[in-house]
Amino acid sequence: MEKPLKLLHASLNNRVIVELRGGVQYQGVLDGYDVPHMNLVLKNVDEQIKEKKTKHEKVIVRGDNIIYISP
Amino acid sequence: MEKPLKLLHASLNNRVIVELRGGVQYQGVLDGYDVPHMNLVLKNVDEQIKEKKTKHEKVIVRGDNIIYISP
Amino acid sequence: MEKPLKLLHASLNNRVIVELRGGVQYQGVLDGYDVPHMNLVLKNVDEQIKEKKTKHEKVIVRGDNIIYISP
Amino acid sequence: MEKPLKLLHASLNNRVIVELRGGVQYQGVLDGYDVPHMNLVLKNVDEQIKEKKTKHEKVIVRGDNIIYISP
Amino acid sequence: MEKPLKLLHASLNNRVIVELRGGVQYQGVLDGYDVPHMNLVLKNVDEQIKEKKTKHEKVIVRGDNIIYISP
Amino acid sequence: MEKPLKLLHASLNNRVIVELRGGVQYQGVLDGYDVPHMNLVLKNVDEQIKEKKTKHEKVIVRGDNIIYISP
Amino acid sequence: MEKPLKLLHASLNNRVIVELRGGVQYQGVLDGYDVPHMNLVLKNVDEQIKEKKTKHEKVIVRGDNIIYISP
Repeated sequence: MEKPLKLLHASLNNRVIVELRGGVQYQGVLDGYDVPHMNLVLKNVDEQIKEKKTKHEKVIVRGDNIIYISP
Repeated sequence: MEKPLKLLHASLNNRVIVELRGGVQYQGVLDGYDVPHMNLVLKNVDEQIKEKKTKHEKVIVRGDNIIYISP
Repeated sequence: MEKPLKLLHASLNNRVIVELRGGVQYQGVLDGYDVPHMNLVLKNVDEQIKEKKTKHEKVIVRGDNIIYISP
Repeated sequence: MEKPLKLLHASLNNRVIVELRGGVQYQGVLDGYDVPHMNLVLKNVDEQIKEKKTKHEKVIVRGDNIIYISP
Repeated sequence: MEKPLKLLHASLNNRVIVELRGGVQYQGVLDGYDVPHMNLVLKNVDEQIKEKKTKHEKVIVRGDNIIYISP
Repeated sequence: MEKPLKLLHASLNNRVIVELRGGVQYQGVLDGYDVPHMNLVLKNVDEQIKEKKTKHEKVIVRGDNIIYISP
Repeated sequence: MEKPLKLLHASLNNRVIVELRGGVQYQGVLDGYDVPHMNLVLKNVDEQIKEKKTKHEKVIVRGDNIIYISP
């Protein structure tokens, strides 16, 4: 059995896909997270909100809105 | 009587269907979960968001958005 | 006076209707529940999401999304 | 001053109207409730979801979705 | 400085307007409330849900859905 | 560094703009607040709900629905 | 590993982009925040709500509605 937070920790420094509510998706390198909120820090980020694409050097993503994280 | 978490535990290593809010569905092997949030780890995942199908090796699914889990 | 959880307990092994947010309805035999979340285990389940009907052997339904349970 | 829970208690065995989010309304005899969730047990229930009317012998209504209770 | 709960208390036995999410409005005499949920008891109530107007002798309004109370 | 609650406190007796979910906006003098809910008391209030404008002598605004407060 | 709150703290006095639910975006200098709510104080703020642009000297943004903060 692999606990969700253990897999999240093992994903540090790797590129992950994060899907949020409302059609928002990030792809970036997982640079940090906190417990128990599962807020994330991503770097080198490609953001897609519906059709609109943006790049960010870093983002802090609030855990509340996360649907899934794909390592 | 079968408690929800006992059934979830018994579903480890089996393929499950997970329905989330917003028309998102996953089918994958249940690899882990945590308590009390019911966050899940799925592997070999078929994702369907409305009409769009995607495959993921692994996903961490936040428990908040889960409507049901079908073992 | 009949407490909600006492009625839920009395409904074990009986067929119940469960209405969730978003136009999702289950009919199935109540096989278990937990407290205080009111997550449910249903078996021999008829699911109806708007017009689409599906059968499941078992489902774990998260209590958060439940509108009502009709024993 | 009349506290909400005192009025709820005084409404036991009387017919009440319960309005939920999403255009769902129940009319039935208040058979029980719990604290602090304000989950309700109603009996001899007339349900109206938008235009659709249904009768239930009993329902457990989750307090989360209640907008108002009219004794 | 006037604390919200102090103003609510001072409004007992006066007619107040209560605006809820989803276009629901009540006008009625504030008969009680509880802390910290801010559930209310109103009497001699005029309810307006979008265009539909209804009268209630008393209602218990759940605090969760309240946007504002105007004494 | 200026803490949010310190700025809120410093805004007492000044006119503020409060934006709520659902296209509701208030402009009024901040007369009070509570912690940690950030419920507000406003006086001499101009309310705008989409196109509809109303005046209130006082309102209690629940903190839950607040998006931002602009002193 | 960089914790979300550490990155937030390091962003004090820098211009950040804050995206909220409902198509609301702020760009402003981060002047303060609190823990654990992640309420923010921004100054010299450019607000964009869908197509409508407004300037504010200062705003208090509730953490609940934040999707991401981009330093």
